[in-house]
Amino acid sequence: MRVSNLFFATQREVPADAEIPSHKLMLRAGLIRKVSSGIYAYMPMGFKVYKNVEKIIREEMDRAGAQELIMPALLPAETYQASGRWERFGPEMFRLNDRKSAQFCLGPTHEEPFTEAVRDTFRSYKNLPVTLYQIQHKYRDEVRPRFGVIRSREFVMKDAYSFDIDEEGLDKSYQKMYDAYRRIFDRLGLDYTIVDADTGAMGGSGSQEFMVKSPIGEDAICFCDACGYAANEEKATCREGEPDGSDMLAIEKIHTPDAKTIEELVAFMGTTPDKFVKTILYNIDGRIVAAMVRGDRDINETKLGNIYEAMEMDLASFDDVERITGAKVGFAGPVGLKEKIDIVMDTEVAGMRNFIVGACETDHHFKNVNPGRDFNADIVKDIKNVKEGDLCPKCGQKIGMARGVEVGHIFKLGTKYSDALNCVYLDKEGKEHSMVMGCYGIGVSRTIAAIIEQYNDEDGIKWPAVAAPYKVIVIPTKTNDEQIMELSEKLYNAYIDNGFETLIDDRNERPGVKFKDADLLGIPLRVTVGRRAAEGIVELKFRMDGTTAEATYEEALEAAGKIR
Amino acid sequence: MRVSNLFFATQREVPADAEIPSHKLMLRAGLIRKVSSGIYAYMPMGFKVYKNVEKIIREEMDRAGAQELIMPALLPAETYQASGRWERFGPEMFRLNDRKSAQFCLGPTHEEPFTEAVRDTFRSYKNLPVTLYQIQHKYRDEVRPRFGVIRSREFVMKDAYSFDIDEEGLDKSYQKMYDAYRRIFDRLGLDYTIVDADTGAMGGSGSQEFMVKSPIGEDAICFCDACGYAANEEKATCREGEPDGSDMLAIEKIHTPDAKTIEELVAFMGTTPDKFVKTILYNIDGRIVAAMVRGDRDINETKLGNIYEAMEMDLASFDDVERITGAKVGFAGPVGLKEKIDIVMDTEVAGMRNFIVGACETDHHFKNVNPGRDFNADIVKDIKNVKEGDLCPKCGQKIGMARGVEVGHIFKLGTKYSDALNCVYLDKEGKEHSMVMGCYGIGVSRTIAAIIEQYNDEDGIKWPAVAAPYKVIVIPTKTNDEQIMELSEKLYNAYIDNGFETLIDDRNERPGVKFKDADLLGIPLRVTVGRRAAEGIVELKFRMDGTTAEATYEEALEAAGKIR
Repeated sequence: MRVSNLFFATQREVPADAEIPSHKLMLRAGLIRKVSSGIYAYMPMGFKVYKNVEKIIREEMDRAGAQELIMPALLPAETYQASGRWERFGPEMFRLNDRKSAQFCLGPTHEEPFTEAVRDTFRSYKNLPVTLYQIQHKYRDEVRPRFGVIRSREFVMKDAYSFDIDEEGLDKSYQKMYDAYRRIFDRLGLDYTIVDADTGAMGGSGSQEFMVKSPIGEDAICFCDACGYAANEEKATCREGEPDGSDMLAIEKIHTPDAKTIEELVAFMGTTPDKFVKTILYNIDGRIVAAMVRGDRDINETKLGNIYEAMEMDLASFDDVERITGAKVGFAGPVGLKEKIDIVMDTEVAGMRNFIVGACETDHHFKNVNPGRDFNADIVKDIKNVKEGDLCPKCGQKIGMARGVEVGHIFKLGTKYSDALNCVYLDKEGKEHSMVMGCYGIGVSRTIAAIIEQYNDEDGIKWPAVAAPYKVIVIPTKTNDEQIMELSEKLYNAYIDNGFETLIDDRNERPGVKFKDADLLGIPLRVTVGRRAAEGIVELKFRMDGTTAEATYEEALEAAGKIR
Repeated sequence: MRVSNLFFATQREVPADAEIPSHKLMLRAGLIRKVSSGIYAYMPMGFKVYKNVEKIIREEMDRAGAQELIMPALLPAETYQASGRWERFGPEMFRLNDRKSAQFCLGPTHEEPFTEAVRDTFRSYKNLPVTLYQIQHKYRDEVRPRFGVIRSREFVMKDAYSFDIDEEGLDKSYQKMYDAYRRIFDRLGLDYTIVDADTGAMGGSGSQEFMVKSPIGEDAICFCDACGYAANEEKATCREGEPDGSDMLAIEKIHTPDAKTIEELVAFMGTTPDKFVKTILYNIDGRIVAAMVRGDRDINETKLGNIYEAMEMDLASFDDVERITGAKVGFAGPVGLKEKIDIVMDTEVAGMRNFIVGACETDHHFKNVNPGRDFNADIVKDIKNVKEGDLCPKCGQKIGMARGVEVGHIFKLGTKYSDALNCVYLDKEGKEHSMVMGCYGIGVSRTIAAIIEQYNDEDGIKWPAVAAPYKVIVIPTKTNDEQIMELSEKLYNAYIDNGFETLIDDRNERPGVKFKDADLLGIPLRVTVGRRAAEGIVELKFRMDGTTAEATYEEALEAAGKIR
């Protein structure tokens, strides 16, 4: 492709609303174009990258025996009503009516239509297992679209669904997808971590996420370098210390004016945060619940929500807190609550003695509080966030923390959807059973962004060859010099004949402009044809490591085979 | 692929709502699955056909120098407001609001976002010409979705847009697309006709449609076998006879009780329909207009609407007709109208003498009416439909009529969208001009249906090899016979190794069931391994022409290279 014909325009300035390298670079290099908030078009060069990534995903899915199809994006409400997700998705689902006022949505994910299709197509254990997939546009009306194609409202996803006769079959189907995902992300050159993930309130027997570590990642990852344990913070656990064997001391109410936060109390009482227990009131689907964790910890809302199979969950309102505790906000505690509400206590708190809690009275706390004697928890479960330095639940070494961008997610669904949609098979005896399902997603759009996040420098993108829109760019330094142009064209055609997608920058621009654009676009091999053209010598520059070399015609051709 | 693993189920019964062969066969063969009215999923085998068609389209678009990109399907209202199409599309456009109540639509066609993208990317004559395309889902809320994927509400379209500096450039870009379309439909084995098409009220300097003749086609085509003239009925013209040179006779009012229709009048007056002139009142965007054509003709509403750049157009209401003519419906005529309204007279009527029209008085007509003497037309234009037997406007031979399914459409848009959206370039002197645009569409989904309409018989589909989901199906007649299975597996693997996508029907079913499914699915080459397996002899059946032959292993392998 001649750059003079290529539909693109690079931008020197950084777009105002772009916060992270991949978003900035995709816009600056003209790979994508913003059409509306969280809605992007892929311009020709971006689309080439997209096709490269899609091809690898498709090859590996096919290799794993998955069969490709495509579902509509426009789906009738009924499809999601049977599973309850028509309600559950809330405002995140784009909804619309057709001309006859029938309700539709734009598919946010496709468990339901796949389950319906398998239900209506396969009836016998002999048909199973089957894994189906599609690569398709998905729609989610995000509250806050951001980071370009990482969190957008229209995005491309590869979603796959497996159907088995039992859990053992599911384990095998799941493992095939696990292996396929590893091959996909390996081939794309991504440095990723596979973490255990939350399976949600409704169950599912296992789930893992493929995370690319990145400071801008929306997920927190807990990992152990010693044993390889890695989990999403939502799901991560840690080893707890031995229970405190001290004697119980007498409970005592103390006056704590102007000390509402843990920090203020620690200062006021001259102790450390781990001697306190926080009591936080939540409103979970209209029910108020008190959650207790040690004073130096945060509540893990995913774990807490799962206990109640929460649909909607938020901190309790000030009014609710004041009514239930009889005190201003900041003095909640398990002792002396004015209304009977569930108390959910973190397992760690169960092992503590003589701790400090709010007294349900403004400006007062209790010290030497002990569970069992002074109050009774209704539920004792792990509801805490793991933090850096906690001990690994597997090996006891210290846990590290990082942030990650989720590029893939595999999930053992079990029979949640097949039960709801009556997707059953007949066994050898003719008895009906629900099919056992798994689902498997790759965010295609965000995978592209993740590659850029990993491979870039101040000059632009550094595409791994496998994703690069063009592998080689030939740059004649002067377009009015016959020798330069002749050698440039000869090289350009030879690269194409050898199967390398190649650009020739035939624009009548200064070499500096062309070099800047080539760097920004991140083409792996730059071949500059300039003052030594007469001798047949060109200059190579490898974008990935920045190395340069002079080369003969033959050496220049060979070099294209070496880019990675 | 083993048929036992293949995600499909054939149906013996014809689905109730399927009226035409392609729709019936796509459902029966399990190529598509209905998800809602006019909304279909492509199942794995249908998706393979889709990919085959898409590949050919993509190759030919790339060969023609068009650059691929992809626009969002979810588009903000503003994109269509500047061109006026936000209003113009009416209820055919799926509309929705996001969580912030911003208005969006699902793109019905993408002239506007492409024009915006080019406007914001290219500024100089040096950048042009450029042709861009996408293969993407489109959405139109059809009043009456029917014929499966031929008229559906979510469908796949290849749409391309060219941008040139002038009409001469547009002619070249248009010709490239014309050539590419011919190659595409030729490669797909379609028997098609290229017809002149209406360019609409807003202009555009030329348009052609690629039509596959079919009794179920929604378009009527007029064609001349003698000279090759072909046009959509909307656009078609015919050669008119010499003007009638007779003397004008005295106008005369006659009493015509109970004769309102042309047929009744013809019988009543003992003459022929071509001595009459029909006067039909239309409501065009709120304005009442009288349209006159010879009594044996129909009014061409496209031609009439174009005169007034009609947005909405319908027959005038009974009330309007009675108020304006002062008579019951059926007695309208150009003489004696009670209100001054536009009279649009067909060119053919201008050459007639002494004709009969309604008298604007119930149960009365005028005879010996003559334009110029008895009334004056405001507009004299061709507003008639051509009919079978009319004379070709080019060569004067008789015109034939057929029905067609439109699979492709190419259109010289001119500057309609670039004017509206300010898509301009600077010429050598730095002066601004609107870019001159063309647009080019292929209905990918309906192209698949058109192939089936052309290639099927009572047993099922007969895929041309280029579109076939699998090229070969190997059928062992007994799955428990070792010799049969060994030869079957050997052939199956050899076909795959030779690059042919192949099925092996390893199901434990009777041969008759397998044959029926193979015929229904339309696999071009069926290889039956049965009683002569021990001798290494198999039976070939070519689905397209039904021929069968016995073959050795080597001959069977070779046969796959011969399918077309």
